[in-house]
Amino acid sequence: MNKTQQWQKYPIIANDLSTVNQFLLENIQTRHHELKDALLTMANNGGKYLRPALLFLSAKAAGKKQYDHDQLIKLAASIEILHMATLIHDDIIDDSDKRRGKISIQAEFGKDVAVYAGDLLFTHFFDLILSATNEHHYLEKNAFAMHHVLDGELGQMGKRFDLSQSLDDYLDNVKGKTAALLRLATEEGAHFAGADHQTTRLMAEFGENLGVAFQIVDDILDYTGGKNLNKPTLEDLATGVYSLPLLLALRHQKLKQQLQPLLSKKWNMTVEDINRVQEILLSNDIISESRNFAKHYSDLALANLKALPLSPARELLKQITKQMLNRTK
Amino acid sequence: MNKTQQWQKYPIIANDLSTVNQFLLENIQTRHHELKDALLTMANNGGKYLRPALLFLSAKAAGKKQYDHDQLIKLAASIEILHMATLIHDDIIDDSDKRRGKISIQAEFGKDVAVYAGDLLFTHFFDLILSATNEHHYLEKNAFAMHHVLDGELGQMGKRFDLSQSLDDYLDNVKGKTAALLRLATEEGAHFAGADHQTTRLMAEFGENLGVAFQIVDDILDYTGGKNLNKPTLEDLATGVYSLPLLLALRHQKLKQQLQPLLSKKWNMTVEDINRVQEILLSNDIISESRNFAKHYSDLALANLKALPLSPARELLKQITKQMLNRTK
Repeated sequence: MNKTQQWQKYPIIANDLSTVNQFLLENIQTRHHELKDALLTMANNGGKYLRPALLFLSAKAAGKKQYDHDQLIKLAASIEILHMATLIHDDIIDDSDKRRGKISIQAEFGKDVAVYAGDLLFTHFFDLILSATNEHHYLEKNAFAMHHVLDGELGQMGKRFDLSQSLDDYLDNVKGKTAALLRLATEEGAHFAGADHQTTRLMAEFGENLGVAFQIVDDILDYTGGKNLNKPTLEDLATGVYSLPLLLALRHQKLKQQLQPLLSKKWNMTVEDINRVQEILLSNDIISESRNFAKHYSDLALANLKALPLSPARELLKQITKQMLNRTK
Repeated sequence: MNKTQQWQKYPIIANDLSTVNQFLLENIQTRHHELKDALLTMANNGGKYLRPALLFLSAKAAGKKQYDHDQLIKLAASIEILHMATLIHDDIIDDSDKRRGKISIQAEFGKDVAVYAGDLLFTHFFDLILSATNEHHYLEKNAFAMHHVLDGELGQMGKRFDLSQSLDDYLDNVKGKTAALLRLATEEGAHFAGADHQTTRLMAEFGENLGVAFQIVDDILDYTGGKNLNKPTLEDLATGVYSLPLLLALRHQKLKQQLQPLLSKKWNMTVEDINRVQEILLSNDIISESRNFAKHYSDLALANLKALPLSPARELLKQITKQMLNRTK
């Protein structure tokens, strides 16, 4: 399935996303054939174009003027390109064979091509935002977002196997690695469509809250096994990345006593150990406790939208937020 | 030896480089401990700070005004940081254990840390130039330089084991992977110290010519074995990167006939094969033919400097250019 096809059911942005897709395919060209194949493979591997969609919907829902369509296309493509770059490099770190249910760039083309593919996309990101705007403040916001994503990744990497990490550590990392680009998308959509300062800020918060909810649901699905079409279940746990469900379980003294001997094996945890951790979480209501956290953030996101005037775009943003909470893969 | 110490003999920029060094060490901090160690290791591994030195000397030699010292420190640090980022990622590609005669980041800390270390430096680069200037045209020049470096690397990677590549292919790649950052340094030094358009352009050309000469000498030393303190001799040849000396040899029909059976083994070349290639080049005057190319570019660089008024900085740039041509390691 082409990655934009699933957006055809939302006619108000289907054309925009199709244009972003076209623009992106034209922009990631390189005379290095293997790398070009790698990037086109990645671009066609069925990503959801969530960030470009949020950018255009925010522009339509919060904007006050007829926006510069070309500018929004460039901004949307730049965020998607930055997202792709981080995914490619993350897969090297995770030694991940799968990405979006398909083989990852590093598994298909090797680590070398994957390193340069990510780097090339970073340069495209940089080029694109410079060509999209000369508002220095927004260039800085882009640099900050890139930094924030990486800080989140690094924070997560630095806390591997750390039983003492707090929920705040987790949420800080999530706000970077996942929510920063959703925040950038909704903020830029609103701002470059002429939204006032206060509305733009509200839309930035909406993006961040949605991003946190999105990641928590992702981490829940890792334990409930709903992502069987994607990367292997509990890969995070096996590599020492402790996400919300496990951190919540560790706050219960009784569960902590059961989990600690398993987790202390670190890289030597067996498949049985991992399954045992999963069982402990699933049989102790940890999932519904985790879902309450996700719901808290999706409720905040929905509240952010309340100040906007009624419009099809606002309703679609609401719908996306609710669907995100209830998705099963 | 501290990397700036070798510049103490040039009092007119010693203080500037020491400030760049200090600024850089403060700016590459991260809360991820292993990564921080990796970056500080890299920053202290005896790089020559050639690019910051060229930036400050260009400012002094070509500038027309009292420049903003803090701005030049930021610009100089940003170029050095971009340089470090590309070195770290290149070492992953080359699977190189050595960098500047010391162990490389990827060999010491692993590929994972190396990928993120490079990425983090890319974000620092981006942050730094935005904080150094809001001249959009120069932001674009920075983006272009970053792109150009990567295109050069990719061009080189794409031409591995390609016997049909031309000298122009080689020179194009060198202008990117090596000369682009020297060019950026000399151009920015001149421009931000108030040089007029024509002088700035001349200084940009000076940096590029110096960069090409620098890389050719580097590639010659790879064959003459002068770099024994650095990465292993002829590592490039073993990985299919054909540099100027070999490309020149291949233009001689007789030598081509001797070389082709050896080179056609590609990744299966033995140490003996590699030594045989080296012998063929060394015993057929290819090195002096290569040196003529290097001299051509260093002569162009010296000619670029002629339009500048006499100054200690100009004389130092001349001296650096001449020393570069005659260096033995």
